[in-house]
Amino acid sequence: MSPLNFTHILTQAVDELSESESYQGLFHQHKDGEPLPSARVLCDIIELARSILFPGYYGNSTVNSRTLKYHIGVNTEKLFDLLSEQILAGLCFEGGDDCHGCTTKQREDASRMAAKFISRLPYLRKKLATDVEAAYNGDPAAHSFGEVIFCYPAIKAISNYRIAHELLLLGVPLIPRIITEMAHSETGIDIHPAAEIGDHFAIDHGTGVVIGATSIIGNNVKLYQGVTLGAKSFPLDEEGKPIKGIPRHPILEDNVIVYSNATILGRITVGRDATVGGNIWVTEDVPPRSRIVQTKAKK
Amino acid sequence: MSPLNFTHILTQAVDELSESESYQGLFHQHKDGEPLPSARVLCDIIELARSILFPGYYGNSTVNSRTLKYHIGVNTEKLFDLLSEQILAGLCFEGGDDCHGCTTKQREDASRMAAKFISRLPYLRKKLATDVEAAYNGDPAAHSFGEVIFCYPAIKAISNYRIAHELLLLGVPLIPRIITEMAHSETGIDIHPAAEIGDHFAIDHGTGVVIGATSIIGNNVKLYQGVTLGAKSFPLDEEGKPIKGIPRHPILEDNVIVYSNATILGRITVGRDATVGGNIWVTEDVPPRSRIVQTKAKK
Amino acid sequence: MSPLNFTHILTQAVDELSESESYQGLFHQHKDGEPLPSARVLCDIIELARSILFPGYYGNSTVNSRTLKYHIGVNTEKLFDLLSEQILAGLCFEGGDDCHGCTTKQREDASRMAAKFISRLPYLRKKLATDVEAAYNGDPAAHSFGEVIFCYPAIKAISNYRIAHELLLLGVPLIPRIITEMAHSETGIDIHPAAEIGDHFAIDHGTGVVIGATSIIGNNVKLYQGVTLGAKSFPLDEEGKPIKGIPRHPILEDNVIVYSNATILGRITVGRDATVGGNIWVTEDVPPRSRIVQTKAKK
Amino acid sequence: MSPLNFTHILTQAVDELSESESYQGLFHQHKDGEPLPSARVLCDIIELARSILFPGYYGNSTVNSRTLKYHIGVNTEKLFDLLSEQILAGLCFEGGDDCHGCTTKQREDASRMAAKFISRLPYLRKKLATDVEAAYNGDPAAHSFGEVIFCYPAIKAISNYRIAHELLLLGVPLIPRIITEMAHSETGIDIHPAAEIGDHFAIDHGTGVVIGATSIIGNNVKLYQGVTLGAKSFPLDEEGKPIKGIPRHPILEDNVIVYSNATILGRITVGRDATVGGNIWVTEDVPPRSRIVQTKAKK
Amino acid sequence: MSPLNFTHILTQAVDELSESESYQGLFHQHKDGEPLPSARVLCDIIELARSILFPGYYGNSTVNSRTLKYHIGVNTEKLFDLLSEQILAGLCFEGGDDCHGCTTKQREDASRMAAKFISRLPYLRKKLATDVEAAYNGDPAAHSFGEVIFCYPAIKAISNYRIAHELLLLGVPLIPRIITEMAHSETGIDIHPAAEIGDHFAIDHGTGVVIGATSIIGNNVKLYQGVTLGAKSFPLDEEGKPIKGIPRHPILEDNVIVYSNATILGRITVGRDATVGGNIWVTEDVPPRSRIVQTKAKK
Amino acid sequence: MSPLNFTHILTQAVDELSESESYQGLFHQHKDGEPLPSARVLCDIIELARSILFPGYYGNSTVNSRTLKYHIGVNTEKLFDLLSEQILAGLCFEGGDDCHGCTTKQREDASRMAAKFISRLPYLRKKLATDVEAAYNGDPAAHSFGEVIFCYPAIKAISNYRIAHELLLLGVPLIPRIITEMAHSETGIDIHPAAEIGDHFAIDHGTGVVIGATSIIGNNVKLYQGVTLGAKSFPLDEEGKPIKGIPRHPILEDNVIVYSNATILGRITVGRDATVGGNIWVTEDVPPRSRIVQTKAKK
Repeated sequence: MSPLNFTHILTQAVDELSESESYQGLFHQHKDGEPLPSARVLCDIIELARSILFPGYYGNSTVNSRTLKYHIGVNTEKLFDLLSEQILAGLCFEGGDDCHGCTTKQREDASRMAAKFISRLPYLRKKLATDVEAAYNGDPAAHSFGEVIFCYPAIKAISNYRIAHELLLLGVPLIPRIITEMAHSETGIDIHPAAEIGDHFAIDHGTGVVIGATSIIGNNVKLYQGVTLGAKSFPLDEEGKPIKGIPRHPILEDNVIVYSNATILGRITVGRDATVGGNIWVTEDVPPRSRIVQTKAKK
Repeated sequence: MSPLNFTHILTQAVDELSESESYQGLFHQHKDGEPLPSARVLCDIIELARSILFPGYYGNSTVNSRTLKYHIGVNTEKLFDLLSEQILAGLCFEGGDDCHGCTTKQREDASRMAAKFISRLPYLRKKLATDVEAAYNGDPAAHSFGEVIFCYPAIKAISNYRIAHELLLLGVPLIPRIITEMAHSETGIDIHPAAEIGDHFAIDHGTGVVIGATSIIGNNVKLYQGVTLGAKSFPLDEEGKPIKGIPRHPILEDNVIVYSNATILGRITVGRDATVGGNIWVTEDVPPRSRIVQTKAKK
Repeated sequence: MSPLNFTHILTQAVDELSESESYQGLFHQHKDGEPLPSARVLCDIIELARSILFPGYYGNSTVNSRTLKYHIGVNTEKLFDLLSEQILAGLCFEGGDDCHGCTTKQREDASRMAAKFISRLPYLRKKLATDVEAAYNGDPAAHSFGEVIFCYPAIKAISNYRIAHELLLLGVPLIPRIITEMAHSETGIDIHPAAEIGDHFAIDHGTGVVIGATSIIGNNVKLYQGVTLGAKSFPLDEEGKPIKGIPRHPILEDNVIVYSNATILGRITVGRDATVGGNIWVTEDVPPRSRIVQTKAKK
Repeated sequence: MSPLNFTHILTQAVDELSESESYQGLFHQHKDGEPLPSARVLCDIIELARSILFPGYYGNSTVNSRTLKYHIGVNTEKLFDLLSEQILAGLCFEGGDDCHGCTTKQREDASRMAAKFISRLPYLRKKLATDVEAAYNGDPAAHSFGEVIFCYPAIKAISNYRIAHELLLLGVPLIPRIITEMAHSETGIDIHPAAEIGDHFAIDHGTGVVIGATSIIGNNVKLYQGVTLGAKSFPLDEEGKPIKGIPRHPILEDNVIVYSNATILGRITVGRDATVGGNIWVTEDVPPRSRIVQTKAKK
Repeated sequence: MSPLNFTHILTQAVDELSESESYQGLFHQHKDGEPLPSARVLCDIIELARSILFPGYYGNSTVNSRTLKYHIGVNTEKLFDLLSEQILAGLCFEGGDDCHGCTTKQREDASRMAAKFISRLPYLRKKLATDVEAAYNGDPAAHSFGEVIFCYPAIKAISNYRIAHELLLLGVPLIPRIITEMAHSETGIDIHPAAEIGDHFAIDHGTGVVIGATSIIGNNVKLYQGVTLGAKSFPLDEEGKPIKGIPRHPILEDNVIVYSNATILGRITVGRDATVGGNIWVTEDVPPRSRIVQTKAKK
Repeated sequence: MSPLNFTHILTQAVDELSESESYQGLFHQHKDGEPLPSARVLCDIIELARSILFPGYYGNSTVNSRTLKYHIGVNTEKLFDLLSEQILAGLCFEGGDDCHGCTTKQREDASRMAAKFISRLPYLRKKLATDVEAAYNGDPAAHSFGEVIFCYPAIKAISNYRIAHELLLLGVPLIPRIITEMAHSETGIDIHPAAEIGDHFAIDHGTGVVIGATSIIGNNVKLYQGVTLGAKSFPLDEEGKPIKGIPRHPILEDNVIVYSNATILGRITVGRDATVGGNIWVTEDVPPRSRIVQTKAKK
């Protein structure tokens, strides 16, 4: 095949791929002045948030207590700018192909939501402090809070979740999900931003953990790797499409422990202080303070 | 220990590590003019392919329908160039240490394979459109096709698989496997490029999914996180080495659903419309339309 | 809300976030001249180590046998420099907030440890050669040693583990854990650097594998994806904190195979040549040469 | 001096440097949503313009005549986007500290000016083609048009000037000057964007050439390195400030040649076909077709 | 020639180039823990200093008057860190090959000098404000202070000079010269860091300006492009080497103007309010308020 | 103007700019597999060459005498690879639009020329050592050889020239000129690669120096800034095009000194030990040991 043929094949493929029917539903039409949700920018946003929440651990900075405020100030301002832009990207994206360009209202909403998020950072830091404490207390191999903050993937996943959850409560579309998926890719822990999770939440090792959108988790709960809090099934509407928004994931009350690879499905309740053993499939309520395990293996 | 000692230790280690017997089998001898398979370049290739297949979602571009063709044109040409080089890298790599430098035939083969791949892009887009549709229809938490394309790790893993599978069918060595491993690392979903997979394929959450090389999957199949389609065991040849190329992974017929952490092993068939419950270990055929679940847990 | 309001919200949040009580335990006070543990630098360290151990496969170099020594020399020297700095970062980090700046002793220790690590590289290469061999022999889909070194995530995870384990034996704090967590993020395989693992170690697919800190693994052991070698529970001290350093993870003797998603918990022993089936929960000793599997699923 | 002292000195310097009187006139107050003129972005703009005007020479692209349009299309669209933003930056910058944020009118003006500039690109290419021809014909050391386009600093300086001049004619503030200063830094040739320059303009070597804002240069003019077309003096207003906008630089008619390091000052006219020798200081009209040189050196 | 030959030629060249006699005097022996003077780091240092001195113009920041202090704080701290390191590099470099590794005293000196430099920043800003004013008042083409700060190469060259001069006064070796050479490369203006220069210093266009090490320049002096303040000759010692440190460059008193390409050589004095015309060669004192120009050109 | 209009203007401009007559002579048609001359790669080549010639000064390396050979080895190999590619780019570029793709002969020639260049590196280092010595001896402000190598722009310009001159002697087209233009841009010193220059060559300050293609310079020559060694005029052929290859630049014999901004034009000879004063225009032979200066300025 000669170079000419290659060019021919190429231009023909380009022609086909540019026909509008061929990209129906798979094309995002850019609107003038509209920012795009950007994985790279959202990475920077998470890095900035972490550097504000855990000063000195992230962002390669050389802060001491006297110059700390300068750093937090600069990082917070930058976070506000980047977040405003990405929230705007989310709002425009949700607008769909019918609307043309970002409206002034969308711009104002984006800045307002970003400012509200900034004002929630002190609260977020308090929450995350309890998660760090829980991870440290729950792991005989942990040497210090610092090691937990630096190394533990669960802290990364829970930070992203708590940030995304705040944004979702503020009404930000799309962006929260991208943020939790970033942690999913980094840690293998998949927490839906709409889930509700209490204080002192711990996940050990974490790979394969799934926490569905309508899950409710109390305080002092601990999950091991591979645990699923999923939906058993979901009702379809008359067109056979799943009905959105129905509670369909489990409720875990305070002090519950779930061991590795356990699968808990449906809107059931695991009562307070209960323990769920590993590798089991649970689709019915688990009473408080009870303990369930797998049927014994056969040899 | 003085700096001199350090230099001494260092030069001694370098001497040992440079003795040919010490790197036997672990050394890739570079041949003149031969490109190396490069994770970075393959990343760019995948990013380009995604930007062509889902225009406006990837590649940070600001396309609209009038300028779309320019973008697809430039990206397709760049994809052709990078892919030719990486296919050549794969062909040379396979050639082993006996052959010296890439032959003209290898160069021509690489360009020809890359051109054929380009001509398959419209087909790939059609296939992937069905996967996006399946993911959207199967998840009550999904708001739009756009969100699915942007956020869902399964779409990334399935895109890489479908790209890699085309390359494998064209006879490209090594590169397809690297491409699926990239998705494996990003998503925790490990699909062997040689597996055969039908339309409307959905994977929910996905971390821990393994789909072996000789698996055959029909249309409208859905897998949850942690599902394994694996080999039970494999026959060894007289030297005790595994015999290559024997069918050893399951067949899943149309409309099968497999819940999280189920392990299905060996060349068995899960019949059409069957459902496999979570956390179970399946090594025998599952009849069509049947449903199997784990023995009840004990308290 | 006007821009002025945004600035007001921002400066108020910065004030709150800069109050010392708000970052109690979450702040790493930088000490003068102290390097920080850096994920980016540790990435470079691993990349350098891989390029030395498997010459020609990593580091995009174009080595041939005559110029190999130049490359190994430069990479080894750079590895020594970066590693000295990161070990120092680990030593200072462990020192805590009471010590002020890195001491001369810490600097000397860091260089000494780095030099000792360099001198162990030939030994590490020998060990890893057995792991590559085991992966190749255990997978009918593998075409060559090269493909295994290039593509298999388990080789990446085991390399990081073996490097981290050497550093831990030399007394380096923190850094070994960060190195294994990097592989955890990349591959979904979580091996604690303190675990002891023999020759010819193989992990297939790997996502979700967890190997705890006090695990002991013999030669020729093979694990599949999702396998946990974990702790069943751990004794608490009088303050309710877990007691550190007690053996609490399984021992796997030579030639053991554990199938996907099996969970083995506590200081139990799986005897030589035993096979543990997938998706089961094992908390008692498994006799040598035995085979245990899940109770049959119900339909 | 202890680290504490350093922190003290630092915070004190920060305090002083943050007092508003200390940065009077030296501070650019950022307004919300306003882009900043960016040297980096303007570099990209010039690189894009060059890649459109001289296809295949810039932008590292691999264009051939069949795919050329894709490349020109993508580059032109990107140029439009970046240029709109930078023109807006210029408009806002000029607005000064009194105006708050970019107005909608400024945004619209910026896009309109950028679009008009785009429509002038074919004209610019025609002009620059004559400059390339002049450089080639005037230099016995030149081997091809390609070498001239690739290597000759004068082509870079003249390209930037012609681009900047178009923008200035469209009413863009600030940006044109930054663009010519970029070429000044790269080539040592300082052409004010307001100067008027005819076809077939050549500058040989070029370092040290200065062409002032009100200079008028005919067709087929050639300047050597170090030539100044400057102002002799300029009238001051009653406050002693220079009066802006008065013609104060020379007029060079068609076919003039000026040799190296000649200085021509004031609103004088060098008549057509005249030659000005090197190292002389000219402050009076030079008649057409005449030739002036330096008084002979003494030994 | 075969690839083998290439390798042979290469290894032979490497052998020759590694013989110690071949790099006599051209080799900088690295000492343990010693930082190297780094053009890239010094670039960052200049960029940081500019962003502190002219807030909002450099460093791509989005400062407003309420958050300004955060930015100045972070940039000042970073400047201190980078500068300490580079000063140390200069001190060690000067130490020569005889000394082994940076001493504690050198480290302390470096930090002390960097801190003193930081404390001089407010003074430097005041000085530079007069230079900006002079450039604005002296150029009818200038529209605003902002344009001068943003675009005028002379401001860049004079900033680097004033920074370098402060460092030189503090006793920092090597680094000041690298800093002025950076401006030399960027602007074509070569000011030796040891020169003494008063307030309101202006250079127009600037390419080719040279200001020698022992020059003394008063207030309100203006130089045009190509002006040299050089040495006429310099006395040699008995070995024929130039004697260092003798005043050998001109003194320019207040309000002197020197036009383009004038060359003023030797320890002569150009008296206050004098004007030196372009393209002349001056080696004798010029009386105050006088005006000298080139002998008329001949036709 | 609406966004639609912008798109319309844009697509129309793209159409015009893509018409083949519009880019006649300004288009470089890419041929398959042909590398492009790349400023970025040539920058790396120069950086590598400098790091080999002056070990420890360039390339940010931390070499000491024991590990020096590793560094020189790796850098030399990389230089060979990059240079082969760029020489090939030069050969193909010269081939023009008639030839299609790089030939095997061109590839072999490129590698052979690169290898020959490598073998000349020891010679180049010897030559450059004399230039460093000359710069040090000629400048009372120089403190050490190291300072000269690190800071002096002339050393950069002369290094590039000597490298480019070697390549030109080997028959490499285009690339030598790009290399000297890189130094021209960086330093303002423009030395044509075809000029012949002896040992101990010194240029002080350097901005504005021009040395034409057929210049011949002896040993121990020193030029100051702004000196031109140019052509006075050049004979045209019957078509009015300059005749190429005729000697037209000056000859400077041993020990000549030329002061700043002197212009020496035509194939004249400046005899040994002669001195040429600044700011003069020389078009006739200068006898050995003579001294010429400018006619005295008038007041």
